[in-house]
Amino acid sequence: MEFTIVGAGMAGAFLALSLAREGHTVTVYDLRPDPRVASGEGSSMNLGLSRRGLDALGHAGLRSEVDALVMPMRGRLLHDREGGTRFSTYGDGGILAIQRSDLGALLVDAAAKVPGVRFVFEARCTGIEKDTATAYFVDQTTGKGLTAKADVLVGADGVYSAVRRFLQRDERAGYTQEFLDWGWRELHIPARPDGGFRMDPDVFHLWPRGDTMMFAHPNRDGSFTCSCVLPFRGPRSFETLREAGDVERLFRDLFPDLLELVPDIGTWFFDRPTMNLVTTRTTPWHHEDKVVLVGDACHAVFPFLAQGMNAAFEDCRELVSSLRAHPDDPGVAFERYYARRKPNTDALAEMSRRNFAELRDTVRSPAVRVEKALDVALERVSGKRWMPLHAMVTNTTIPYAQAQRRAARQHRLLRGLGVVGLAAIGTALLRKRLS
Amino acid sequence: MEFTIVGAGMAGAFLALSLAREGHTVTVYDLRPDPRVASGEGSSMNLGLSRRGLDALGHAGLRSEVDALVMPMRGRLLHDREGGTRFSTYGDGGILAIQRSDLGALLVDAAAKVPGVRFVFEARCTGIEKDTATAYFVDQTTGKGLTAKADVLVGADGVYSAVRRFLQRDERAGYTQEFLDWGWRELHIPARPDGGFRMDPDVFHLWPRGDTMMFAHPNRDGSFTCSCVLPFRGPRSFETLREAGDVERLFRDLFPDLLELVPDIGTWFFDRPTMNLVTTRTTPWHHEDKVVLVGDACHAVFPFLAQGMNAAFEDCRELVSSLRAHPDDPGVAFERYYARRKPNTDALAEMSRRNFAELRDTVRSPAVRVEKALDVALERVSGKRWMPLHAMVTNTTIPYAQAQRRAARQHRLLRGLGVVGLAAIGTALLRKRLS
Repeated sequence: MEFTIVGAGMAGAFLALSLAREGHTVTVYDLRPDPRVASGEGSSMNLGLSRRGLDALGHAGLRSEVDALVMPMRGRLLHDREGGTRFSTYGDGGILAIQRSDLGALLVDAAAKVPGVRFVFEARCTGIEKDTATAYFVDQTTGKGLTAKADVLVGADGVYSAVRRFLQRDERAGYTQEFLDWGWRELHIPARPDGGFRMDPDVFHLWPRGDTMMFAHPNRDGSFTCSCVLPFRGPRSFETLREAGDVERLFRDLFPDLLELVPDIGTWFFDRPTMNLVTTRTTPWHHEDKVVLVGDACHAVFPFLAQGMNAAFEDCRELVSSLRAHPDDPGVAFERYYARRKPNTDALAEMSRRNFAELRDTVRSPAVRVEKALDVALERVSGKRWMPLHAMVTNTTIPYAQAQRRAARQHRLLRGLGVVGLAAIGTALLRKRLS
Repeated sequence: MEFTIVGAGMAGAFLALSLAREGHTVTVYDLRPDPRVASGEGSSMNLGLSRRGLDALGHAGLRSEVDALVMPMRGRLLHDREGGTRFSTYGDGGILAIQRSDLGALLVDAAAKVPGVRFVFEARCTGIEKDTATAYFVDQTTGKGLTAKADVLVGADGVYSAVRRFLQRDERAGYTQEFLDWGWRELHIPARPDGGFRMDPDVFHLWPRGDTMMFAHPNRDGSFTCSCVLPFRGPRSFETLREAGDVERLFRDLFPDLLELVPDIGTWFFDRPTMNLVTTRTTPWHHEDKVVLVGDACHAVFPFLAQGMNAAFEDCRELVSSLRAHPDDPGVAFERYYARRKPNTDALAEMSRRNFAELRDTVRSPAVRVEKALDVALERVSGKRWMPLHAMVTNTTIPYAQAQRRAARQHRLLRGLGVVGLAAIGTALLRKRLS
């Protein structure tokens, strides 16, 4: 079959590769320039790659290329206000930090090498005709119109998907978008003059402060990409940080160790745009056998579980295997794909939302800390019959909804047994044993 | 101040009237033709007017004109499958049925007579510039562009509001739209040859069947407007009703009394479009001191509590009184308006959603029936200190959110006292006393 894909990001490029391997013909259009030649710039959190994503990339034969681009993070290092730290492991697997531009270029490059794949960059999607799987574009350099008609049109064009918008017209389309009252700005911790790292290079660094939060991912060049997450309004917020002095005061007060690591923090802070955090849900994901959505185009989540890209790859694999199961009826394939993915991406949205509160408040609640420690301890002694939620999400391919249900069961069990209450007494003792 | 209002429907026309009475200058644009000359046609449920709406119209001095257009419904008449009926009162006040076209023409006519109000019909809103309260239109007959710049731009353009769409651009706008899996078609029960009514004219007629539902409102000309509410898919649904015979079978089976009243039911049924049922929520409702939304443009609800128009009028009154309280700072007025209305329209959305299930299933659950009867009985003996939810929504101007909280408290109380369980035993006895 012939596919048009709108969007050459992670989902679009990976899907093109996967479909072409199945013998389909694919043309991918993207608004942006070719990531193989343009340096990926701009503000975008480093991406988190975990078991689900690695499996998908391995299946596509890209494992060794990817391994060369990643920085493994084996756990989370909490920085308290006094400069002290506390480590908690991600367990077997963990999260790999990778730069969006690196992986983007790799995927486009790999897809372009498969016969039947063609990329058209700098083309803006201006409309679709959903009954005929036709998409209209305008070439951003010449201003000329382009028309792409295929058997199937795929929207892989991200959270503000144009394909989704046109797909929803005149349909009973459910749609929700929810912005967090918090935003973030990217800061940069440069490498040492000798190229070395200024902090532990193999962990996810986190400065949770309740009403503000900071985190940092390692980069291969010795630097760290740091995200400053703040409410838009309120006493400590983007609204109240008006000049360099305000920012320096905030850092001196809450993140003193970072003040030394980020040079010219005041200047940097105001140089960067504020990025939003949004959750979207939509239904339907497809129009008959003609149009279908993948990735952020149908389910954007908060980035706090680092699963957005991993979930998008899972979408692509499910879509390809559904098409393989129903080669003569893409409409049925899309229905199956939706039925299998929707409950899982809904669960992921919910878990990602909750994990924001957890990351932000981690230092605050000793009860939560005890429960977490117990959770991890039980995993060790139970031989994986018991797994903390974060481990199921990160280190396995257990469907998200199933992981969510299992974690809820475990949580009830812990509470039900009154273990949390009892354990609070023996915290210090227990923590010693575990560390 | 100078206002541009987009939308000359219930909310737009009423707001124009109210603002002009305060001394403001208002121009109202609408896509449709002038309702004073065009006969309001098309499928649209009769509107329900209750205490809130009547208060608003009375305040605007339109009470006697409105009284001449309405059909009062003093309660709900349930029709069972065997043709039996059961009446339940709406209490003091009740709901008045009114045709959208009648009230629409009345409001535009009344507004147009106030100095400072101007209407421009058949003008489609094609964009807005929110920082300058500018709206762009295209005249639908000449194709010419129109530009309207005022101090404040109001979006009163309904559930698919163009103003809202443009307002939300580049904002952290929360938005939810949720379609019910059910739709409806309008049917018509004509008057008797002598002009008389074929059923009781002063009640809301309801045929609840769990998996389908029918209801009818009286019209002043002796006819009834009937709504057939069905799922889109499933054993009994729009999908399975393919030809006249299917429809006749469904009616013979579930609504035998209606079969005699609606002539050529099969033909009628397929002549009419299927209408959707949608709930929408959005935030923000305004942009600084320049743009603000009212009515369905910011909160469409299911029609099952018959409150949509009443809530829109409440919006308008709150907006006008907020502007009166902050004449020099519309931005603050809009903030206050939003803060006061949003919790109430959210509560209304939730209650309207729940009332769908209640209407649909009314015949089914004896327990619910007992609780309802008790609810009504308690109202009588308590001297209004106890009021059923429907009565608070319909017969009072208690803010929706407050009504919802109060009803929840009453419900807990009933359950808590175990009254429902006990009362189930004495149902028959109790019902006799009440009737």
